[in-house]
Amino acid sequence: MKVRIHVSLKPGVLDPQGRAVHHALEGLGFSGVDDVRVGRLIELDVADDTSQAQLEEMCRKLLANTVIENFRIETMEAAR
Amino acid sequence: MKVRIHVSLKPGVLDPQGRAVHHALEGLGFSGVDDVRVGRLIELDVADDTSQAQLEEMCRKLLANTVIENFRIETMEAAR
Repeated sequence: MKVRIHVSLKPGVLDPQGRAVHHALEGLGFSGVDDVRVGRLIELDVADDTSQAQLEEMCRKLLANTVIENFRIETMEAAR
Repeated sequence: MKVRIHVSLKPGVLDPQGRAVHHALEGLGFSGVDDVRVGRLIELDVADDTSQAQLEEMCRKLLANTVIENFRIETMEAAR
C-alpha cells in the first residue's frame, strides 16, 4: 500500500528555508510570489494491513516534529 | 492563489535520506515498511494571474533539480 505523508511547518513558525527560496525566486525575476513554505513529502510503501494508528505513530515518533510541524496522511489505493 | 509543488526523486535514483528513515522506522519496531522515499513539498502563495508556464519555469530554474527529480504542480482554488 502506498502512503504519502505531507509534513509542513505550523503557521506562525519561522521558515528560513522558505524565505531563502522566496528571495531566490525574486532574484530570478519572478514577481507576484507572496509567500513560500517548504515542507517534506514522505512516500511510504507499507504492508496493506498497516493501520491508520500505526501510521500516525510513525509520524509522531519519527517522521514529523509535532512541536513545530503538522502532518497529513494520504493513503493511496492498495495496488490490486 | 495557493500552489503546491510536489518534488520527488526520479525512480532509480538512490535516496540515502529515505534509506535512513527506513532503518530508523525498523529500529523503532515498525515492521511491514517496504520502502521510504523522501521529497519536498513547497507551498507557494502567488498572484492569481500567475500562469502554469511561469510555475513550471520556477520549478525548472530553482525549485527542482530536473536531472534527478520530478515535480508535480497542484493549483489550489484561488481564495474568493
